[in-house]
Amino acid sequence: MTTPAYDPTSFKGLEFHSALPDFASGADNPRAYLERCLETVAAREPVVQAFAHLNMETARAAADASAERWRAGRTLSPIDGMPVAIKDLLETRDMPTEMNCSALAGNFPKRDNAAVMALRAAGAVIFGKTVTAELGGSHPGPTTNPFDASRTPGGSSSGSAAAVAAGMAPAAIGTQVGGSIIRPAAFCGNIALKPSQGGINRGERQATSMSTHGVHANAFEDMWRVAAEIVARVGGDRGGPGVQGPMSAPRPVMPERLIVLETAGWAVIDDACKAAFETLLERLAAAGVTLLRRGDAPEVEALEIAIADAGRVAAGITGWENQWTYRNLVDAYGDEGISARARNTLAAAESMTVRDYRALLREREMAQVAYAQIAGLADAAITLACPGPANLWGGDKPGEPLMRRPTGDAIFNYPSSMLFAPAVTAPMLSVEGMPVGAQIMGRTGEDARVAALSRWMYETITPVVG
Amino acid sequence: MTTPAYDPTSFKGLEFHSALPDFASGADNPRAYLERCLETVAAREPVVQAFAHLNMETARAAADASAERWRAGRTLSPIDGMPVAIKDLLETRDMPTEMNCSALAGNFPKRDNAAVMALRAAGAVIFGKTVTAELGGSHPGPTTNPFDASRTPGGSSSGSAAAVAAGMAPAAIGTQVGGSIIRPAAFCGNIALKPSQGGINRGERQATSMSTHGVHANAFEDMWRVAAEIVARVGGDRGGPGVQGPMSAPRPVMPERLIVLETAGWAVIDDACKAAFETLLERLAAAGVTLLRRGDAPEVEALEIAIADAGRVAAGITGWENQWTYRNLVDAYGDEGISARARNTLAAAESMTVRDYRALLREREMAQVAYAQIAGLADAAITLACPGPANLWGGDKPGEPLMRRPTGDAIFNYPSSMLFAPAVTAPMLSVEGMPVGAQIMGRTGEDARVAALSRWMYETITPVVG
Repeated sequence: MTTPAYDPTSFKGLEFHSALPDFASGADNPRAYLERCLETVAAREPVVQAFAHLNMETARAAADASAERWRAGRTLSPIDGMPVAIKDLLETRDMPTEMNCSALAGNFPKRDNAAVMALRAAGAVIFGKTVTAELGGSHPGPTTNPFDASRTPGGSSSGSAAAVAAGMAPAAIGTQVGGSIIRPAAFCGNIALKPSQGGINRGERQATSMSTHGVHANAFEDMWRVAAEIVARVGGDRGGPGVQGPMSAPRPVMPERLIVLETAGWAVIDDACKAAFETLLERLAAAGVTLLRRGDAPEVEALEIAIADAGRVAAGITGWENQWTYRNLVDAYGDEGISARARNTLAAAESMTVRDYRALLREREMAQVAYAQIAGLADAAITLACPGPANLWGGDKPGEPLMRRPTGDAIFNYPSSMLFAPAVTAPMLSVEGMPVGAQIMGRTGEDARVAALSRWMYETITPVVG
Repeated sequence: MTTPAYDPTSFKGLEFHSALPDFASGADNPRAYLERCLETVAAREPVVQAFAHLNMETARAAADASAERWRAGRTLSPIDGMPVAIKDLLETRDMPTEMNCSALAGNFPKRDNAAVMALRAAGAVIFGKTVTAELGGSHPGPTTNPFDASRTPGGSSSGSAAAVAAGMAPAAIGTQVGGSIIRPAAFCGNIALKPSQGGINRGERQATSMSTHGVHANAFEDMWRVAAEIVARVGGDRGGPGVQGPMSAPRPVMPERLIVLETAGWAVIDDACKAAFETLLERLAAAGVTLLRRGDAPEVEALEIAIADAGRVAAGITGWENQWTYRNLVDAYGDEGISARARNTLAAAESMTVRDYRALLREREMAQVAYAQIAGLADAAITLACPGPANLWGGDKPGEPLMRRPTGDAIFNYPSSMLFAPAVTAPMLSVEGMPVGAQIMGRTGEDARVAALSRWMYETITPVVG
């Protein structure tokens, strides 16, 4: 199966919010909308393999109930009837939660994650669990990139990004600890939100100190409404306010100034990707946005230095925090219970001491201090959302060393996770006929502002075909 | 079975640290120590009912392995061979985790909580799961107070407090969200630590924003070493340093000044308890400690006002944060899956909105600000640890309204939970021939200082027989 090259100036993904007038008039309804999604699943899933589980029976019943509410004019929310796919790290009462991990084959706790419970209460149609890299780590599942099946969709929210890109669902829930929402979304041309740390209630999945739930979509309105409707019902993580702001997508706001963050990624990307991003920056400047780079302010330079080693810090912290989960799986199911990649992660974590962990936390806090000090300089920061187009990936080869980053490098993503910062990726670029995202990062708690700024960019600046 | 009245001036509970010289010389060994604990269990468990599960086979094997390490001079830690009982909210690979909840009957996830994993790695002998009030809430299990079976042991760490008081174990792990460690410990004459929020890694049990693991013991050395050995291996909660300080119990430190906090509890306790506590304060003053009360400094008055309604704030926050767990249990197992008390808690939580929750978080943060402002005034604060001796409790009576607080009132405990403050209770008082604790509360992160100050009090001040 061949797919045409991705063109960010013409690609139009499946939206939900634009269907609402037809729902209201009766020209369309949520059951018909769902059936169109399922037709796309039937057509594309054999190659894309975005789903670990589908529950069409429950989904059709939910869509019918929603259709009845639309007929009666008694909808529960503006996402009533929206098919939403859920990353298979989150528990769902009607589908297994296997996390792409052999030890968890058949795991079916029959509980809903708080965010899933909220989505159902808002009338959303939960119709499938999307493939995740094993346990949210680096070992990939079978999902392929919808724009080129020889490439990774990114990960760990592989299926969520691919399902949205392939038009199988207008929105999907992903999770990120390093780069697991923003990178796959960028590789797949999604619009996606990785909220401020704690922004969306993680429910039973209070996994690590940098993990967040987030939303993949093809439209700002869909992305924002999903987050807002969840938070309106179950809030953010325990102890914090959660994402705040309007219930509809924030209106576009032109940034006065943006800080261009290189991050450690700038040194490793290829010329085509760098040139495309520079062209995007030129278009922003031409539109009147002042850009500040590391030479322009010592605070920016200090931040670049503080985040230069974000990957080591993020991987160390997350590995440490996940080790008891991994160790329990290995103790209960043996070495084959988790992948060789996960066993390597466990071994690295178990070689750490609590002093090592505390040292990494100190590095993270120092970077957060450096980040706070740029707050007054600009409206937000802009970076690439991924280091170029999705890499080729065809599976591990028996007898060969494990490929290091089969779902791509999170080098542009560690900073926002480490800084607890909200980040939005928008599909502003293409390289080699594949999507590449540009990312706006803001201050913790300013999710709505980041959405407003990135929406302006998406709606105003012509994307770059690199 | 009658037990003699409790006398804090003569009561001597089961210790572990004092057995170590005999372990080293070979005059005693961990297996023999365990067998003595099990003999006490056999003698007292029919009335006390501290345990939900016992695993003697695993425990004896672990004790034998420890005995072998003592013989060989290759011990893993100073708690190698220590029998430790685990509250049945924490997962253990070799025993079920039923949380005293019908819906969880038979729940056996075969995983170790991070703290349990750490204890095993330190050589501790995990021999039983202690009874908890249902789901860590207010609905009691069968445990009775070891000093008077017609009274509650307190809760929710009912079995942990009772097992330590009855000499069944030298230490036990409890958990607190409102008053679930300090109150039962105080009702049972334990020495206990409720650490700073996040002080001990909660593992899979990242339940609510105010929950902590803590330690019940009969000696400061045992209490502190258990906490220190856990944190040395698995740290505190994700994202924080965890309890810091020496590996052995901090040396006693005489406070220069203590703030006497009344809390809302002062208005509701009876004259006998009030008189006993005032006598304790007189003895502290006679020993040279300056006491500051609410009239003595406006900062203290402001704090008293900020924590006056701590019970409503704590209950509201915790109810909100637990609601998805409760809702999932009711959806899966029906109304009978959880107690009527828990269903009341769920109904109250489900009547809240996210705005209500955020308002409670703001109240909590305001109280934390007020607490930070007393930091320079004194070394720490002192309060009662419970509102008098343990109350009578003989079970719910069919047809009668549910007794409101069968495990006692947490009115003296909500403040330390709400303030994220470390707290230690020491058995400094008796009233009606029953233990009553006095509690030292310090600044967040200063667990070692709180242990040092309360140890000084315990070792220096003659307890009050009221």
